[in-house]
Amino acid sequence: MSESPVAGEASLALEDPHYRAAVVDLLGAIAYGEISAFERLAEDARMAPTLEDKVAIGSMASTEFGHVSMLLERLTALGADPYAAMAPFREPIDLFHAHTAPADWYESLIKAYVGDGMAADFYREIAAYLDTRTRDLIVASLTDAGQSRFVVDRVRSGIAADPRLGGRLALWGRRLMGEALTQAQRVAAERDALSALLAGGVDRPGLDLAAIGRMFSRITELHAARMDELGLDS
Amino acid sequence: MSESPVAGEASLALEDPHYRAAVVDLLGAIAYGEISAFERLAEDARMAPTLEDKVAIGSMASTEFGHVSMLLERLTALGADPYAAMAPFREPIDLFHAHTAPADWYESLIKAYVGDGMAADFYREIAAYLDTRTRDLIVASLTDAGQSRFVVDRVRSGIAADPRLGGRLALWGRRLMGEALTQAQRVAAERDALSALLAGGVDRPGLDLAAIGRMFSRITELHAARMDELGLDS
Repeated sequence: MSESPVAGEASLALEDPHYRAAVVDLLGAIAYGEISAFERLAEDARMAPTLEDKVAIGSMASTEFGHVSMLLERLTALGADPYAAMAPFREPIDLFHAHTAPADWYESLIKAYVGDGMAADFYREIAAYLDTRTRDLIVASLTDAGQSRFVVDRVRSGIAADPRLGGRLALWGRRLMGEALTQAQRVAAERDALSALLAGGVDRPGLDLAAIGRMFSRITELHAARMDELGLDS
Repeated sequence: MSESPVAGEASLALEDPHYRAAVVDLLGAIAYGEISAFERLAEDARMAPTLEDKVAIGSMASTEFGHVSMLLERLTALGADPYAAMAPFREPIDLFHAHTAPADWYESLIKAYVGDGMAADFYREIAAYLDTRTRDLIVASLTDAGQSRFVVDRVRSGIAADPRLGGRLALWGRRLMGEALTQAQRVAAERDALSALLAGGVDRPGLDLAAIGRMFSRITELHAARMDELGLDS
């Protein structure tokens, strides 16, 4: 075991270079996603109508950032350069943000809540196919600090005050979902290791097309539930 | 003791309403200062030349923000509305930032390091005159996550590559100090409770003019030491 770059761990899976490449890709994508989410949230905090709102959104931003260092450390422990691991995901993630720049405070709240929720659901689905240690790390990096209540309250009271807001924000939620799928498909087409991970290997169960379909159904249902929680049609 | 708003604590000092008002002011100023520093650092992170730099500055930003919640909780425990407590400090702190908007990445690094250092020295000096619990809270809220090394390395190698940078950044350090003193004097003139705190009370030692002078000498010396560490004249 001592020649393994992750010596001291009982994870045989990580000795398979294809599997390792996929894990490095995945952690790199999550890490850059969190850095990027932090930047956008911090920027959105400037639109906050009150200091209370600013503190709430700032706290979401720093929770995101708080997960970055453990992901980078793990990438290093896996023998990867964390910055090289993040590089392939900068363009799709930056494009996602460029195409979904919030026009106001409500759009920014929804994006924080719904966008973050979608990403978390997707990574959690994938994590189910990974070794325990990687799975635990991913799940830990996706916990929020319970700010969801704040977003739901703000959006619901905004809609109560101006019912037309509901229609606009429902469209916004659909646009976020559409843009996320576009970029996710792009990543899947470009990153062979990641796609192969989902397809499985000789000694590792994977997902057939029907299973991938069910995974997307679950993600779509969770998205609809979140929109519903906000008082919005999905 | 049970009628005290801070029941269960052995701090008699906090039963004095003047002292309490001063502590509320001080914690409000520190909390708004951290929120504000967070926002500026997050904004500066966008100027970062590399993703490594972005992560380093983002980590400084979220460390600042990580201190906010404990300050707000303590203000609430003292019977104050944390947002009302921060309100009087928004204008001077926002003005400080408006007057010291960094023109480039180096100015932003220096501001993060030197500005933050000055504020920390000042609050630590004042904390020495406070009850233990308040003092411990303030000291805990001023710890950085060891990012100083990063700033020093970046600035020193920037100057090595372009020696003219040193002159410009030395002026910038002086401007930061001058602007901080301007806003601090303004706060001292407007916030009676805070000034009275420094002056002391019947049962509490305070600072006479000579002691205030020595305090500013210490702060200035620490500023000079930091500038020297960066390879800059103060």
